[in-house]
Amino acid sequence: MITHPAFAVEPWSLRECRLDIDVLAQTESVFSLSNGHIGLRGNLEEGEPCGEPGTYLNGFYELRPLLYGEAGYGYPESGQTVVNVTNGKLIRLLVDDEPFDVRYGTLHEHVRVLDLRAGTLTRTVGWSSPTGGQVRLTTTRLVSFTHRAVAAIRYEVEAVDEPRHVVVQSELVANETQQYVSGDPRVAAPLESPLVLEENVPAQEGVAIMVHHTRASGLRVASAMCHDIAGPDGTLIEAQASGDVNRVTVATRLAPGGRLRLVKYFSYGWSARRSRPALHDQVVAALAAARLAGWEGLCADQRRFLDEFWQGADVEVVGDPEVQQAIRFGMFHLLQASARLEDRPIPGKGLTGSGYDGHAFWDTEIFVLPVLTHTYPRAAADALTWRKSTLPSAQARATQLGLSGSAFPWRTINGEEGSGYWPAGTAAFHINADIAYAVAQYVDATEDTAFERDVGLPLLLQTARLWCALGHHDAHGRYRIDGVTGPDEYSAVADNNVYTNLMAQQNLRAAAEAADRHPDRAAELGVTPEETTRWRDAAAVMAVPYDERLGVHPQSEGFTEHEVWDFAGTKPEQYPLLRHFHYFDLYRRQVVKQADLVLAMHLRGDAFTPEQKARDFAYYEALTVRDSSLSACTQAVIAAEVGQLELAYRYLGEAAMMDLADLEQNTVDGIHMASLAGVWISLVAGFGGMRAGQGRMRFAPRLPPGLTRLAFSVRYRGSLVHVSVTSDATTYRLQEGPPLTVAHHGEPFPLRAEPVRLPNPSAPEPEQRIHQPAGRAPLPRHPEG
Amino acid sequence: MITHPAFAVEPWSLRECRLDIDVLAQTESVFSLSNGHIGLRGNLEEGEPCGEPGTYLNGFYELRPLLYGEAGYGYPESGQTVVNVTNGKLIRLLVDDEPFDVRYGTLHEHVRVLDLRAGTLTRTVGWSSPTGGQVRLTTTRLVSFTHRAVAAIRYEVEAVDEPRHVVVQSELVANETQQYVSGDPRVAAPLESPLVLEENVPAQEGVAIMVHHTRASGLRVASAMCHDIAGPDGTLIEAQASGDVNRVTVATRLAPGGRLRLVKYFSYGWSARRSRPALHDQVVAALAAARLAGWEGLCADQRRFLDEFWQGADVEVVGDPEVQQAIRFGMFHLLQASARLEDRPIPGKGLTGSGYDGHAFWDTEIFVLPVLTHTYPRAAADALTWRKSTLPSAQARATQLGLSGSAFPWRTINGEEGSGYWPAGTAAFHINADIAYAVAQYVDATEDTAFERDVGLPLLLQTARLWCALGHHDAHGRYRIDGVTGPDEYSAVADNNVYTNLMAQQNLRAAAEAADRHPDRAAELGVTPEETTRWRDAAAVMAVPYDERLGVHPQSEGFTEHEVWDFAGTKPEQYPLLRHFHYFDLYRRQVVKQADLVLAMHLRGDAFTPEQKARDFAYYEALTVRDSSLSACTQAVIAAEVGQLELAYRYLGEAAMMDLADLEQNTVDGIHMASLAGVWISLVAGFGGMRAGQGRMRFAPRLPPGLTRLAFSVRYRGSLVHVSVTSDATTYRLQEGPPLTVAHHGEPFPLRAEPVRLPNPSAPEPEQRIHQPAGRAPLPRHPEG
Repeated sequence: MITHPAFAVEPWSLRECRLDIDVLAQTESVFSLSNGHIGLRGNLEEGEPCGEPGTYLNGFYELRPLLYGEAGYGYPESGQTVVNVTNGKLIRLLVDDEPFDVRYGTLHEHVRVLDLRAGTLTRTVGWSSPTGGQVRLTTTRLVSFTHRAVAAIRYEVEAVDEPRHVVVQSELVANETQQYVSGDPRVAAPLESPLVLEENVPAQEGVAIMVHHTRASGLRVASAMCHDIAGPDGTLIEAQASGDVNRVTVATRLAPGGRLRLVKYFSYGWSARRSRPALHDQVVAALAAARLAGWEGLCADQRRFLDEFWQGADVEVVGDPEVQQAIRFGMFHLLQASARLEDRPIPGKGLTGSGYDGHAFWDTEIFVLPVLTHTYPRAAADALTWRKSTLPSAQARATQLGLSGSAFPWRTINGEEGSGYWPAGTAAFHINADIAYAVAQYVDATEDTAFERDVGLPLLLQTARLWCALGHHDAHGRYRIDGVTGPDEYSAVADNNVYTNLMAQQNLRAAAEAADRHPDRAAELGVTPEETTRWRDAAAVMAVPYDERLGVHPQSEGFTEHEVWDFAGTKPEQYPLLRHFHYFDLYRRQVVKQADLVLAMHLRGDAFTPEQKARDFAYYEALTVRDSSLSACTQAVIAAEVGQLELAYRYLGEAAMMDLADLEQNTVDGIHMASLAGVWISLVAGFGGMRAGQGRMRFAPRLPPGLTRLAFSVRYRGSLVHVSVTSDATTYRLQEGPPLTVAHHGEPFPLRAEPVRLPNPSAPEPEQRIHQPAGRAPLPRHPEG
Repeated sequence: MITHPAFAVEPWSLRECRLDIDVLAQTESVFSLSNGHIGLRGNLEEGEPCGEPGTYLNGFYELRPLLYGEAGYGYPESGQTVVNVTNGKLIRLLVDDEPFDVRYGTLHEHVRVLDLRAGTLTRTVGWSSPTGGQVRLTTTRLVSFTHRAVAAIRYEVEAVDEPRHVVVQSELVANETQQYVSGDPRVAAPLESPLVLEENVPAQEGVAIMVHHTRASGLRVASAMCHDIAGPDGTLIEAQASGDVNRVTVATRLAPGGRLRLVKYFSYGWSARRSRPALHDQVVAALAAARLAGWEGLCADQRRFLDEFWQGADVEVVGDPEVQQAIRFGMFHLLQASARLEDRPIPGKGLTGSGYDGHAFWDTEIFVLPVLTHTYPRAAADALTWRKSTLPSAQARATQLGLSGSAFPWRTINGEEGSGYWPAGTAAFHINADIAYAVAQYVDATEDTAFERDVGLPLLLQTARLWCALGHHDAHGRYRIDGVTGPDEYSAVADNNVYTNLMAQQNLRAAAEAADRHPDRAAELGVTPEETTRWRDAAAVMAVPYDERLGVHPQSEGFTEHEVWDFAGTKPEQYPLLRHFHYFDLYRRQVVKQADLVLAMHLRGDAFTPEQKARDFAYYEALTVRDSSLSACTQAVIAAEVGQLELAYRYLGEAAMMDLADLEQNTVDGIHMASLAGVWISLVAGFGGMRAGQGRMRFAPRLPPGLTRLAFSVRYRGSLVHVSVTSDATTYRLQEGPPLTVAHHGEPFPLRAEPVRLPNPSAPEPEQRIHQPAGRAPLPRHPEG
């Protein structure tokens, strides 16, 4: 946990004013730069000290065998693990023969700033070596949003007081030692020396190149670097390459105030198919384009790209500077994780760490994509197009499991199932309905017909087919889905999980509607009228259990009959429960890891009455321990809807500080994309009350006491709607695009050129006292150490 | 599968008239010799060809790491695997420099006979070497019931036609290569060279010794051999020892009709604590005792021991010679698995193979011990005393799982949980009630008060405490046990499994009653009146779900709401289902691997009305695929009870031929002790209708059309009751012991010196047509190839 305020609270940047090596690994995650294709952890240029070295390429993985104490039919034999590829960030410095290392000598100054509008990470260092040689170092790093394959570092060293001999070594290094090994099952299995060298060419005409491949997955990766160097006369430049190291050495003597400046451009490419020469040429070409743009050009492009993004994605929060910073930090990282996907997944940690082995999960579709759909829709389309590209694997998996349609993997990089524990993996079939939900949301928001026909429809109908194979009509005519696992990982393999059934119902309906809209394409895909009728019939009688005695929905059938977890007897240090209690014990009790039924109330609000929402929320609030980062935002949304505005605000605070204060103590493994998306969801769907679907954009804004103004923009059907909420009223403005109908607290109105200001009705009186399990109230934003 | 009649049908022996190398591995299991301490597979003396070499010592294991695709709290880190220890059976033969190998030359005769009264395995061979040297070989092997640490082989070779040079090499060999590797998860993980040599002493004064230890489990094993050799003058004897081989070589020249005879005595000892010298001396001492008895003495002791056993354990079956042979074969192997346990477990495969890693499971308590309790009760006491000795591990496991009392392991050798898949391991908590059941049965049958106080009571109360921690009273006051797995492994982690709840109910009551009978000892063990009241209260309101709509008991809550498995669409080669379908698919459907609710009807018959039994049996009969050897006998018992005598007879046939015809195609891994016990159960509890408990011994005999007479003896409260059933009447006779009250078809009568003959009422008319899933009717005894 980051127990002191690590970062200054500023609206458009994240500033670390002094280096704290105890939280170095966490700051590496937070200061990651990425464009969705390349990801660089915020490692110090000189390589050491280091929490976890990290350079990732989206989709690049190694296979590792999945072993089982007792194996079973259909268990995946291997899993995928993200690879820390060739490190191009590395620039070492010698001052009068003393290696620059922040752990030695004297650090006069060490400031790092992530600039959310510039898209750069800047570092300013004042340092005296153990022998007294003082230098000033300024580095600026970027991963280009406009040049997908390119990253660059501007590195400047200045002699402060006396003349200094300075040597800078800029490197490409593969197979770095992984420093960090954890016993936590959620952390990646470490890979030792995953890359096999194919080619290591020292800088010729300034360009150095390395090519490697992986042993088991058979993927090839190339990286290249070149430099613009400006130093005093007599500056010496040498190039060497041997083993897994490729090095350009620059040696010079700096007069006091004299500077050596070096711009390092480096590029990456990988492929499962392309040859070594082809990949070699590709990274050289990328470098040439970058060098043509030059450092200033890359920076200008970066800013332009971001200006355009913020135009439609910024959220203003007045009255809470921390949340203001957090929402921008979050949106910046969402963009970083998705901007240049080009049909690759968005992993749970983006490209900021090796947590969860670099896998993508359902949280992308349920938390991340709906935000992108309304702010940066192209990225949502890209991520779903990746899902579509994995349909062959998902169909093969369904066949292996004796099902029809597709069975998408619980966790994956390449589309193959990578889960080694099926009750919380394979059985979590809701991933299929989650993908369908993201498709339906995107199509509804964009009216992107080409996407719907080519990408959406195949996804919708294959997932609908799965539900037809997985469920059955019981003796009462209800459509049951038995033996599946919902979002809450503290229950598993239960019957008629309400979330799953409601999402499957929506999936079935969406598939039937999409098939109606694209009858020719549907027919090509083998859909018959009989099949769409079956989908509609199953949806019409979908089982949704209800506990009449308690007047609440059981999360799954029988859930409310189970014993309630002994919260009073659980010690604070026994959380997260999964690390201190056996699954059997969690599964048989009423204890909820993360919003499940409450998430159903958010995504399928139409299936619940306001009274049911209030009762269900109160019931599950008392059972939910939030041992997951995928919960606070959903609880915030429903708390706001049922009038618990202060509670919603506290959940917003938790979501906002998840990574900035490392509330779950695993930011070291990468930052939580879904939780970052959750800050937007808490604000826009929570206090903005935004819901979209069926061609309707609705808001129900209400601010909690702490906030004086909340303003955000939402893209919908070609328009960009700006919403500005104050405590008493909301102003709607058409920022871009054609007029459209919007609803304010249930009342539709036309939004045209003129802004519309409407009063906010007061919140419904909460019916019940809400409480959380002992000690599991929303986390304070700044936990004590 | 053994597709031809491998064995001659004889009442008191198992005779193989010719060698079939295709089923060599199966016959090695069937011809195993054991006394419950030492187990020797029926490997050919010359070592090759070989299905799987096997020499086992009860309780001797190596640890192997248990790995997980995704680990979780409380998962065992290592499992135990039975070790193939030093092979003392090995005697190689050279005839005129040609090694004797049945695959070469000409085999004129090869007969093996397992004599069930002598307790020996005899082999008679006529062989000509490839160069024409003809010999006759006769070997007789025994594992002594009276000398626990000793086995012996009488080995005789005779030159038939011409003078022959003959060399016999008698060996001790450790770390033999395991030949057989299977992909079946039920098979042992092979261990390579598990034994580390400590000492290898060539025969001095005739005694050769080897001492080894295991790497991870740190157990030490010693073996020794010595020989009585009788051959022509000039016979040369040499001793050598190197590496893992210890050899005595006997070379001679035999005139036609001349013989070389060698009696090999070999002994074993192992310990986790004792030193090398101590173990060394122990095996030498055992050999000395054996040599003192001599071959004839060992054989005479063996026969005396068996005569006494058969006196109380024989079952006569007139009208079905195959079943007659099978029941004696089964009882012989039960004795072999248990005679000299001395506080070690009875593994699922006894000491006849490495199947299931040599682990003991619940089947010992539920199938094997009840048979021993009524035929050879000392062994049942021994096996339960072993359970008691593992209480510290079971208590530690309960604590780890957040429970009270003890949580006995699902599979184990040393008392530690060795299951690598918790839904079918740890969650099968019924093992605890099963142990309690075996205790209660034993105490009821023997009135062994000392055992009850010292062994039974601690087991009963610790298991009762588990149920108190595992269950809870629901809003209706019922006592629920949620999230557990019953006997049927095609369902898992369900609520209120009827078998589990009824067995737990019995466990709770038995614990309370035992505490009442031994109040001082109970108080010492911390039992208070409040606690026994809690046990009784929980038992009194135990939840037993019932489906009013169908009029049957669901196996677990909600089971009858699940979709019925598509039996019509399942191909014969897709059985066993677990090898062709994913667990999730099995768990969510109505498909039963093995008797579960039906087993509850056998063991807790008092909890069901006759009408319920008939309806439940019919319902589950249509769902039960018997992908387990632990089902046919239970189905036989209940089929007989509900009047389906012909069906019961067919299930008896399946149980009887399980290993003799290798019906499940895994006899190679060892024979199925529980299934062998099941032959007795089918006959005695099925057609004899025997039930015991609460001081009452009841019978309800009825023969199926095929049998003309069934006679058996049952030990109960110091008496041995002989029951002889014909189609119309039953004769009860007091074979030993004091008079007692017995019930015949519900009518109690006093059984004194005079035999009592009573008519058998006709069977109840079966209410419903019974059918099994397509293709899953009882297996024919002799499957076609």
